[in-house]
Amino acid sequence: MRIPVELSKAYRLLNHGPTVLVTSAASGRTNVMAAAWNMALDFMPCKVAVVIDKNTYTKQLVDESGVFALSVPCRAQAQATVDVGSISANDLPDRDKFAKCGIIPFASSLIDVPLVEGCVAWLECRVIVEPRNQERYDLYLGEVVAAWADDRVFSDGRWHFEGFDELRTIHYVAGGQFFATGDVVEATKK
Amino acid sequence: MRIPVELSKAYRLLNHGPTVLVTSAASGRTNVMAAAWNMALDFMPCKVAVVIDKNTYTKQLVDESGVFALSVPCRAQAQATVDVGSISANDLPDRDKFAKCGIIPFASSLIDVPLVEGCVAWLECRVIVEPRNQERYDLYLGEVVAAWADDRVFSDGRWHFEGFDELRTIHYVAGGQFFATGDVVEATKK
Repeated sequence: MRIPVELSKAYRLLNHGPTVLVTSAASGRTNVMAAAWNMALDFMPCKVAVVIDKNTYTKQLVDESGVFALSVPCRAQAQATVDVGSISANDLPDRDKFAKCGIIPFASSLIDVPLVEGCVAWLECRVIVEPRNQERYDLYLGEVVAAWADDRVFSDGRWHFEGFDELRTIHYVAGGQFFATGDVVEATKK
Repeated sequence: MRIPVELSKAYRLLNHGPTVLVTSAASGRTNVMAAAWNMALDFMPCKVAVVIDKNTYTKQLVDESGVFALSVPCRAQAQATVDVGSISANDLPDRDKFAKCGIIPFASSLIDVPLVEGCVAWLECRVIVEPRNQERYDLYLGEVVAAWADDRVFSDGRWHFEGFDELRTIHYVAGGQFFATGDVVEATKK
């Protein structure tokens, strides 16, 4: 079941460094791309950073709308994640990467951008406009305004993947290769 | 054995989202902190982004020297990583977090900042000065000028952890809990 995540704990959805899908929408057009280059940037208000290349259709839509969403894909979606990372909407006649890559969108709660069905966490973001970062570094900052998780693997502020191997998050390296999120390692916080 | 990593492939050391140790040095003083909030920012020249809180001693040293290094710790170093993330050098009489946390430094190649012994990858970085990011978001950008890896787990631009479980990289969540980097998931890049 999709449950809301407290914004003060939303950073934990990205803290372990998963690859994400970035969705965008403007003027009735939508897009989705993959981004290994993302991170949390602040606890509260929760902020994130993500690299959106200047040649992407996503950049056009995000610049127009001022919003984007991050969906955290799972192991079962590794192929779709590579596909959306390899194909540019600019090269498709209808620019419909969702259909091309078998990505099923659903409506977000607070921003007018689709989220991705089958993912295990979602963050709805408003761009914190920083033109120099955006133009010089392809670096976008966002404030998280709503966050969600699949409660089979995230609840009470914690990920718990035991028994749900296909729902483990994925971490891209290169050439189609990911690592799945692995074993829990516990240290003592004094 | 510690081997050099081509700068064009250095992003792969961070691409899968491991938590890193940030080391710094200035005027004969040194420090180390942990940072889950890091990411690659560009391929070539290789750039990285990392969040360095304004209240940290690390920030003082990095602002003074204009350089920092990232060392990528492994599973065997999970406790030390939590320790350096929990203790502030500002609270230690001698400000020596290395000794306090059992962190053994060694010399880097191109910048005057220690790297951390026992880690599995290292990136030597020069700050790309962006005062607004640094002051407003605690966000530091760096150009990677040298990179290294332990060839038991990274060579020819690929991580390969099989047979070296204690050398798997780690991904922090919260409260002392990490995930180790898990199984390889292969997708087809068309």
